[in-house]
Amino acid sequence: MVIIGAGPAGTTLGLMLQKQGVDCLILERQSRDYVLSRIRAGVLEWGSVEILERLGVAVRLHAEGHIHKGVSIGWAGSQVLDVDMLALTGKPMVAYGQTEIQKDLYDAADERGLPIVFEADVTLHGVDSDRPSVAYETHSGSELVHCRLVAGCDGYHGVSRITVPQEAKTEYEKSYPFGWMGILSETPPLPQLLYANNERGFALCSERNPMLSRYYVQCPLDDTVDEWPDERFWEELLARVPASAAERIVTGPSIEKSIAPLRSYVVEPMQWGNLYLAGDAAHIVPPTGAKGLNLALSDVHYLAEAMVASAGGDRSLLDGYSDRALQRVWSSVRFSWFMTMLLHRFPDQTPFEQKTQEKDLEYLASSVAAQTSMAEQYVGLPL
Amino acid sequence: MVIIGAGPAGTTLGLMLQKQGVDCLILERQSRDYVLSRIRAGVLEWGSVEILERLGVAVRLHAEGHIHKGVSIGWAGSQVLDVDMLALTGKPMVAYGQTEIQKDLYDAADERGLPIVFEADVTLHGVDSDRPSVAYETHSGSELVHCRLVAGCDGYHGVSRITVPQEAKTEYEKSYPFGWMGILSETPPLPQLLYANNERGFALCSERNPMLSRYYVQCPLDDTVDEWPDERFWEELLARVPASAAERIVTGPSIEKSIAPLRSYVVEPMQWGNLYLAGDAAHIVPPTGAKGLNLALSDVHYLAEAMVASAGGDRSLLDGYSDRALQRVWSSVRFSWFMTMLLHRFPDQTPFEQKTQEKDLEYLASSVAAQTSMAEQYVGLPL
Repeated sequence: MVIIGAGPAGTTLGLMLQKQGVDCLILERQSRDYVLSRIRAGVLEWGSVEILERLGVAVRLHAEGHIHKGVSIGWAGSQVLDVDMLALTGKPMVAYGQTEIQKDLYDAADERGLPIVFEADVTLHGVDSDRPSVAYETHSGSELVHCRLVAGCDGYHGVSRITVPQEAKTEYEKSYPFGWMGILSETPPLPQLLYANNERGFALCSERNPMLSRYYVQCPLDDTVDEWPDERFWEELLARVPASAAERIVTGPSIEKSIAPLRSYVVEPMQWGNLYLAGDAAHIVPPTGAKGLNLALSDVHYLAEAMVASAGGDRSLLDGYSDRALQRVWSSVRFSWFMTMLLHRFPDQTPFEQKTQEKDLEYLASSVAAQTSMAEQYVGLPL
Repeated sequence: MVIIGAGPAGTTLGLMLQKQGVDCLILERQSRDYVLSRIRAGVLEWGSVEILERLGVAVRLHAEGHIHKGVSIGWAGSQVLDVDMLALTGKPMVAYGQTEIQKDLYDAADERGLPIVFEADVTLHGVDSDRPSVAYETHSGSELVHCRLVAGCDGYHGVSRITVPQEAKTEYEKSYPFGWMGILSETPPLPQLLYANNERGFALCSERNPMLSRYYVQCPLDDTVDEWPDERFWEELLARVPASAAERIVTGPSIEKSIAPLRSYVVEPMQWGNLYLAGDAAHIVPPTGAKGLNLALSDVHYLAEAMVASAGGDRSLLDGYSDRALQRVWSSVRFSWFMTMLLHRFPDQTPFEQKTQEKDLEYLASSVAAQTSMAEQYVGLPL
């Protein structure tokens, strides 16, 4: 097997295959340091924690990750709803940065001798045939690898999905008319993740560890980081969260700052011949609801099972992989869309839509059934 | 008190006030026969049944109404979900035509000597002052009535809301890009109400009594009844419902046929000076979810309480009426909007939105929490 991409999806898949005695090679376009420095997701479903546990890469996660019993939602200025996920579903979430997970995965790969080639420029050949091959170039020269199966875990901009011809894929897409301006700061986070729907726009208070906070504010799509000096960011954040939260937020200099657009995207099927797509290579969700990394891990859970079975001669799981993975993908895409619609202000929102959104939040606050429905999706439907 | 409009809202309010010893006069623009012949809603929340019971007008309702334990939702061709409202919430719905309720209300009004003037052309004067008066013209001449309070129960096209100046009201509105083509037929209905989301569009199988069925299909806004001969209607209906339902539907000649556009509308506040709005005069919901008549009854429940208290010298309930009623109005407006969005095909729906809608239905079918949330709203939140 060749795995394209050594992010969380590709590296986890590699470790899973290796554990079951299936040989594989991972090719990554970026350098190891670059991958390790990317600031991404930070909230894990319990099912994702279990996947990492079974792989033996969850020791530090358990020691340093922070159990989230629930999330808070602020709206209409001062209203705050605490959704107690643990009480409603029996499952918590765990806050543990993707950067840390990536480090744990690379440490395990080193220890276990899982081959990862960094800074490899990849092209795929004949992946729709019985004899796929992967060519790659590094600083030290060119290689060609023949293989049975290729796993495309190389993200939205990677070569894998791009290799699938237009007529062999159906793409579903929604763009949202705003982005998230995010910062990291070495300050203690709020005790619980807080989403806020404010007339000035959405805000999110999240965390990476007890001395590393992650904050976001909704911003116009064409804003640049330069337009958001720290003072402006903090002022805006504090104005968007309920006063009870604002007075507890500890501000400080940002150590990272970036703007990301929000988008939903799914490609169907998640397969073309002997190329199988997983993670961001096949789908993008807006970060509202924290599904992106969790979906990547459930994809590779299904894909590893299927690849191991096919190594033993049974192709049925491989044939069913796309349908099986898409079932969960669409659940999460739908939920991320729902959370995004519920919590953001849309530039073209009519007064009717604005009222309806406010009433959605009021109803949620009043109904155990509605909170249970949100909670069961937030903590993750069963694999 | 003067009540404008002798539909279900106005007549119920009149009977409520009379029962508490508060004098009132009801003025209705149409003839009695015209009001009695209008084909409207047919599904009552349990709270509405209790309102009619307390008023002593539910004897025939209990004898002839049909208890609905739940509803069915069909989608994706053959999928059918039964939402057991009674099991999920402890409350059933009751199918009993608005026409029958109207008859029961008029019978009670006759028996109890509640004055209703039909075919009265009304104008309101000084309703924002301490001395409102209502002028009306009938075939037999003109009258002017002075009163303390006016209740506007005369529907969306009535004079009451139109009398409120633009600067004294905020209007919230949403139009949907389709209508419902509906027929009545003297055939036995399906045992349970069925909503269907089909690629050809929405359909609804409902009932009025054991030998009177009400069916609807979504149609373009500019369609006319002439374009829908019975054969075309039945063919389209049967193509839109799951086969398991289609084979049980008994077709027959239509005895009534009409097309109605779908719209959400709310005016705030539901008061201007001494004029108080209730029912369709203040809000319109699309029929998906069967909230219109139920909202009219809860409005007048609140309004009667407030008017009786004010007759005793306590104006506080009257001052709070609009806020109190709007709380429930917006819950139902939101729910009707949600049901409409979930079950119809929108002409401008993107493939992404189409998939999301399908996944909404799949999620609903898979989740007890989501079904409970739908059920508690369908059977009606507490007064």
